[in-house]
Amino acid sequence: MANKIEPKILKGFRDFLPSKEIERKRIIGILEKNFESFGYVPIDTPVLEYTEVLLGKGGGETDKQVYRFEDNGGRDVSMRFDLTVPFARYMAKNRNDLHLPFKRYHINKVWRGENTQRGRYREFMQCDFDIVGIDSASADFEILMMMRDSMKAIEVNDVTVRFSHRGVFNRLLGRLRISESSVEILRIVDKLGKIGEEEVISLLKGLTTEENAREILDFIKPADSNETTLDKMEKAAGGADEDTERLRTIFGYIEECGMEDFFKLDPSITRGLDYYTGIVYETFLNELPGIGSVCSGGRYNNLASLYTKEELPGVGAAIGLDRLLAALEELGRASEKQSVTDLLILAQDDKLFGHYHNLSRRFREAGINCEVYHAKKKINTQFKYAEAKSIPFALICGADEFASGTVNIRDLRNRESWDGITVNDAVTRLSGFNK
Amino acid sequence: MANKIEPKILKGFRDFLPSKEIERKRIIGILEKNFESFGYVPIDTPVLEYTEVLLGKGGGETDKQVYRFEDNGGRDVSMRFDLTVPFARYMAKNRNDLHLPFKRYHINKVWRGENTQRGRYREFMQCDFDIVGIDSASADFEILMMMRDSMKAIEVNDVTVRFSHRGVFNRLLGRLRISESSVEILRIVDKLGKIGEEEVISLLKGLTTEENAREILDFIKPADSNETTLDKMEKAAGGADEDTERLRTIFGYIEECGMEDFFKLDPSITRGLDYYTGIVYETFLNELPGIGSVCSGGRYNNLASLYTKEELPGVGAAIGLDRLLAALEELGRASEKQSVTDLLILAQDDKLFGHYHNLSRRFREAGINCEVYHAKKKINTQFKYAEAKSIPFALICGADEFASGTVNIRDLRNRESWDGITVNDAVTRLSGFNK
Repeated sequence: MANKIEPKILKGFRDFLPSKEIERKRIIGILEKNFESFGYVPIDTPVLEYTEVLLGKGGGETDKQVYRFEDNGGRDVSMRFDLTVPFARYMAKNRNDLHLPFKRYHINKVWRGENTQRGRYREFMQCDFDIVGIDSASADFEILMMMRDSMKAIEVNDVTVRFSHRGVFNRLLGRLRISESSVEILRIVDKLGKIGEEEVISLLKGLTTEENAREILDFIKPADSNETTLDKMEKAAGGADEDTERLRTIFGYIEECGMEDFFKLDPSITRGLDYYTGIVYETFLNELPGIGSVCSGGRYNNLASLYTKEELPGVGAAIGLDRLLAALEELGRASEKQSVTDLLILAQDDKLFGHYHNLSRRFREAGINCEVYHAKKKINTQFKYAEAKSIPFALICGADEFASGTVNIRDLRNRESWDGITVNDAVTRLSGFNK
Repeated sequence: MANKIEPKILKGFRDFLPSKEIERKRIIGILEKNFESFGYVPIDTPVLEYTEVLLGKGGGETDKQVYRFEDNGGRDVSMRFDLTVPFARYMAKNRNDLHLPFKRYHINKVWRGENTQRGRYREFMQCDFDIVGIDSASADFEILMMMRDSMKAIEVNDVTVRFSHRGVFNRLLGRLRISESSVEILRIVDKLGKIGEEEVISLLKGLTTEENAREILDFIKPADSNETTLDKMEKAAGGADEDTERLRTIFGYIEECGMEDFFKLDPSITRGLDYYTGIVYETFLNELPGIGSVCSGGRYNNLASLYTKEELPGVGAAIGLDRLLAALEELGRASEKQSVTDLLILAQDDKLFGHYHNLSRRFREAGINCEVYHAKKKINTQFKYAEAKSIPFALICGADEFASGTVNIRDLRNRESWDGITVNDAVTRLSGFNK
């Protein structure tokens, strides 16, 4: 006999067993429905692209993480490492077919050859939603609302979306005359939650004076209310301007929608990435603050500058689906369904398989997920199958029931039985079963 | 200014514009629901796997088409080229977590560096459903039913699923003493629809006598009814055996379910692939026979022999989603929706954006997909946006309506208006709108 190949998979990659995949699809379905309720449409892009298109002519820090190779036609190609770069390329390529403002969502896999740590994978899901072609407080606020409503839709209600404005932060840095270090400063401030105040001060002192470091630290501390935080930010930045005005406008929308409990102005939110220019957001589960933000984003003033001269301002956010699913598991709120079947028709009599299949159609037509056990095995084996998959109902029909046009239904959760009822009756009773 | 990069994509790969992606997701959603109604559960596997695991120790004919490379850790990896091999690997790896019989569906992308022709892509979707761990007529029949019900679910009713049995065909070849050429003969017979009888005879004559070639051609011609076809096949194969008995059993199920119109025994169906051992199926749209089978499959007696000693018999089929979508377009039955929005709230007054967002929430909560236009542009620009996306309803609310607590609703399809109605009234009227 030939040697068997070990059925192993690559580190950082995962098989999804039914219970995990059923839950992942359930959550994705809810999120899609939520995005569509705001008028966002789905798109898709290729998994493989020209490396030059994804990485630009030089390529940067990400390079080492990218799955890049030469295809059989000698082309330099890469697997996408996020959904933002392909979206920029997509906007530039399909600009004539898209009417602005354009609102899209995109939920799919991306690949990065990172070191695998707890909760980090080399193949993972991103879930992006963006509005492109408009720069307004109304658009900024819509993303804020969608972030919270996405969590609400999956029954995670105790969330806080923290937001700030990169323009105001940049003005502070300008006033302190340290704009040239803004990228490094942003990265340091972004780590506040992880490394604490003292370490932030110490790192900032490597870039500027202690006085400036203290002022930056003071700036990023939120005050009691959104209004007083904004007053403080405004003062530190050197007065009101259109950025602080936009934040005030957004406060008005928040108030009018009665959503003050969910949205908190927090100047320590800066996002490490340097392409944000306006509002920036992060979302925290108050029951699990330690896992970090599950949905983050912000405003950028030029999405597709690599590919087109047309300026495409936008605002959007991305849900870290793997982190969110891990959080739901930790909170005990992830479903662990092994099966999608409502009713198993047991194989009692070899001669009745045609009848069983015909019965199964009646239940399916009534919206009841129904399967036939495909071989006349011991009845205990068949019940074990139902139990292993937590199938709630079984139908038993032998020669006698067939002759009298009836069936027996067993509720496997509580061992209740309805015996000798008509098929119509059975369909009606099971239709009431709440999936 | 830096040179722009051309936003091009690889040959054989596609961007999905919203209208295409909305339709693709709609069809996939219907198919998933249909599979789940039969108790099939979703799974997922990695896009990248060890090359040895996907291709076996040697690798075969497929090799040239496979996207294969060395990753940054020096591993020899490949992108999956179908969903069958990863499924076999998955069954072997996760055997202890899966209860047999195991019924799964898997809808996802695969990659093959084939020559791109009309309707052939290098990145495309497969849509597989299989029952593993049981060998019975009931399982064979369930797949047959699912093939037809999948088409019915997407409102393609005029279909014929043609099926045959590889065991009976092999017995004929045995009787003619040409079993050793069975793979080549299968491939020739499989082309009958494309190349015609004379060409089949001529090719077969390269492998056997003219008499045998004529007998094979006679064998693969269906008779008037399933029963007479089976009688003829049985005779040619040398009499009844368990394979012909199984076909007869399946006929009984077909009759009991009243589905004779959809399932036709057709001995010319052999499937080119050599791993099938029992029933084989293909599905044709009677309105578009020229496009070939949109759903094909069959029974195999050992899914995961590459990885495990355990014998895992199975039966299943795969829908060619790209071909099916192309067929729906050709039949004029593909939706071309540009948008998922039911109601656009127009921006009439800059001061009312908070109100607009609050209104939008009321509609969304009632299940109406609602978006706010995010900037106070000319009203014509806003109507043009609604028109470009075929959004059916607009809501207009200026200072007067705000003061009186009312809104105006415009049906953009027929220019009907409901003016000065309450928000509750508007929600009620639009809830009745059939999406």
